[in-house]
Amino acid sequence: MRFFLVLTKIVAALALTGQAQAKVKAFRGEIVHFVADPRTAGDLAMQHFADGLLLVDDGKVVGAGHYQDLAKDLTKATTVVDYRGRLLMPGFIDTHVHFPQTEMIAAYGEQLLQWLNNYTFPTERKYKDYAYARGQAKFFFDELLRNGTTTALIFATVHKESTDALFDEAAARAMRVIAGKVMMDRNAPDYLIDTAKSSYDDSKALIEKWHGKGRLLYAVTPRFAPTSTPDQLAAAGRLLKEYPTVYMQTHLSENQAEVAWVKELFPERKGYLDVYDHYGLTGSRSVFAHSIYLEDTEIKRMAATQSVASFCPTSNLFLGSGLFKLYPMLDANVRVGIGTDVGAGTSFSILQTLNEAYKIVQLQKQKLSAIQGFYLATLGGAKALSIDDKIGNFVPGKEADFVVIDPTATALGKMRHENSKTMAEKLFVLMTLADDRYVQATYVNGTLAYDAAKK
Amino acid sequence: MRFFLVLTKIVAALALTGQAQAKVKAFRGEIVHFVADPRTAGDLAMQHFADGLLLVDDGKVVGAGHYQDLAKDLTKATTVVDYRGRLLMPGFIDTHVHFPQTEMIAAYGEQLLQWLNNYTFPTERKYKDYAYARGQAKFFFDELLRNGTTTALIFATVHKESTDALFDEAAARAMRVIAGKVMMDRNAPDYLIDTAKSSYDDSKALIEKWHGKGRLLYAVTPRFAPTSTPDQLAAAGRLLKEYPTVYMQTHLSENQAEVAWVKELFPERKGYLDVYDHYGLTGSRSVFAHSIYLEDTEIKRMAATQSVASFCPTSNLFLGSGLFKLYPMLDANVRVGIGTDVGAGTSFSILQTLNEAYKIVQLQKQKLSAIQGFYLATLGGAKALSIDDKIGNFVPGKEADFVVIDPTATALGKMRHENSKTMAEKLFVLMTLADDRYVQATYVNGTLAYDAAKK
Repeated sequence: MRFFLVLTKIVAALALTGQAQAKVKAFRGEIVHFVADPRTAGDLAMQHFADGLLLVDDGKVVGAGHYQDLAKDLTKATTVVDYRGRLLMPGFIDTHVHFPQTEMIAAYGEQLLQWLNNYTFPTERKYKDYAYARGQAKFFFDELLRNGTTTALIFATVHKESTDALFDEAAARAMRVIAGKVMMDRNAPDYLIDTAKSSYDDSKALIEKWHGKGRLLYAVTPRFAPTSTPDQLAAAGRLLKEYPTVYMQTHLSENQAEVAWVKELFPERKGYLDVYDHYGLTGSRSVFAHSIYLEDTEIKRMAATQSVASFCPTSNLFLGSGLFKLYPMLDANVRVGIGTDVGAGTSFSILQTLNEAYKIVQLQKQKLSAIQGFYLATLGGAKALSIDDKIGNFVPGKEADFVVIDPTATALGKMRHENSKTMAEKLFVLMTLADDRYVQATYVNGTLAYDAAKK
Repeated sequence: MRFFLVLTKIVAALALTGQAQAKVKAFRGEIVHFVADPRTAGDLAMQHFADGLLLVDDGKVVGAGHYQDLAKDLTKATTVVDYRGRLLMPGFIDTHVHFPQTEMIAAYGEQLLQWLNNYTFPTERKYKDYAYARGQAKFFFDELLRNGTTTALIFATVHKESTDALFDEAAARAMRVIAGKVMMDRNAPDYLIDTAKSSYDDSKALIEKWHGKGRLLYAVTPRFAPTSTPDQLAAAGRLLKEYPTVYMQTHLSENQAEVAWVKELFPERKGYLDVYDHYGLTGSRSVFAHSIYLEDTEIKRMAATQSVASFCPTSNLFLGSGLFKLYPMLDANVRVGIGTDVGAGTSFSILQTLNEAYKIVQLQKQKLSAIQGFYLATLGGAKALSIDDKIGNFVPGKEADFVVIDPTATALGKMRHENSKTMAEKLFVLMTLADDRYVQATYVNGTLAYDAAKK
């Protein structure tokens, strides 16, 4: 409880500063955010201000609390944006998504390896053209914001042009984005492969150009073990050593045929994760999409190396990949974030992704509460990306990325919202029934970036 | 091919009748419907008129074909409703849904048996009050129509009042609906049980009152074996003998704990299906929701008795029930319909239900094509309900229940619609990405019953 009192005092102190007041933005609504993991902090993890006020200054949160506590210190110069009846939540965080696959979402019939050959590779070829890639990046970010997603860890294609296009577009929107150029030097069409050397050189140049520029961060991005030679994986490892604050993203144990293939390609390694581990690609800034078919020793190694798993429910069902073991992973102290994995995922909506996450967990006879779900989608996602010092909740000093949710956006949702008694129930209704229609507005860095009324 | 020529001639003949012309309604759009099962008829199963015309007279289809073929025979008195750029499809058919559970959709955390005790039974108690039930029935049918569903096989509650309310509301909308009062005389709260005799008497009175009245049909509705005594199951069997055109609906093998419970309660029977079979509850008008954990002998018995299975994807995932074996059932010649199973299902949308059906089939390493999916949602559903002489496609003489789909309803859907090359692809995009937003209008019996522009 002490934490809350301290927080309130900070808020009050900031709210009282006369000079800051003039440019403070104030948003009134029902505030829900997390200050800790519900699995360890229990009821203290979620803060809920039924009539709340969120204060933002220069793109940063300066306070969040009860309206009655904070409003009295506002000067007349401060306009209060009235979102009463709406929920104000931290922006959603998508820990795995492929921007060039937006245009091929909902491609029929295949499981992972054929799906890559039949749909993905021919599509990604187009992204060598910067102008084309930039246009698609615009569409992609529009979709993210329409769905309330303000941060994502993103795959570009093998082309540096697509990576530049993605970062240019993210920079234009001042979004906190982590992304990288795919490294892929075998087992893919000729038109789509680089080499160990060119991928190292291109990635290095992109890191120098983008990592830490504004809100942008770089991720070294070997697609997955089957499409990289040992030399290329070693090159990826060298980049991580040279740039210790850079991220690493790849795929791991998504599909049983894939796992078998990796064992064939790397017979000298103990298993799939060990391939990455051997080349120095595990670590606290390494995010492994899917991580479904891990053996117990691999789960332990994920935890020991502080590596992260991205849970991609709609994709894992759509490609028939399998059921992610959420609680075994969390119990082993592996950080987990939520990922849409568009284009194998079927929705940009983190809400719909939580709907299917719940179902995957239910099929394993366990329960994903809404409290835990929304935690994973916000602060948990920020922790998974080692970025919780910057985003993920409304603690003062955090970057002001947030979403305005209208829980009455559809007749069915309105009825269930109104007959729910607790915030846990209301959140569960949202994570089951809601979609982009429920996102009324999305703010990035304190600025309105999506407004449903103006779409 | 002969079939198509005959059809065209019928259309032409009807279109030429002068007298009928004055009151014929004509709808121009992209027509897609099925005249056979794609599994047996292949490419001939689906008819597609890119620029099509649908002709309706007195609530019945009188023709469907190419606009250029049919338009020239229209008189000036006929107004053509212009739905160009939209798809015209037969109304969707939901083969399993509980209207009183609408208000408890998205109830957290339980699998079947606890979910019934904690959420369902307390909710259904309220439906003894006719006025309350009627109000909820209005909301329920609004949701069906908003989602393009024009026919459903529906559970009321144990109360005859709720059943009257449901039928009164369906009658007011001239909808083709099959429904029944739940029979339940044990293993449920005192406030919610009937007796073998009262359930027989009430059901009989409801059959006399509603079965065959207008477009309404009755289904004898024992909830499931665990909540009926042998006496009550025998009473249900007697009703089916006395009224051979009446339907039967119940639940079967949804959950493993349920299956084990049935074996305890009916040790004298060979298995779960055999309980129903023994009491005369199998047959061509008997629909068994879920039917997940059937043994091979049971699947064979389903086929031998011409019994029907309702596949309820969102429910089976939401309650963690398990994976319906679609192709093993179809291969065994068991008719299958699609069901939302709201309130355990998480959507009234048959489109979203197909999205999750695909995923359940994918997890079993098989493929549900959009052609097969839309067949199951329309003509296949009508066949499952032995009602394909009346609804399910646009063959002349069928009742004119249809839906107008806007495939460009969202930015993402529009992009994918426009970059898809074939109708199979376009339909797959719809069954993966679409929801009630894509339903622009729904017609019941030839009359506009839902219009998104006026919601």
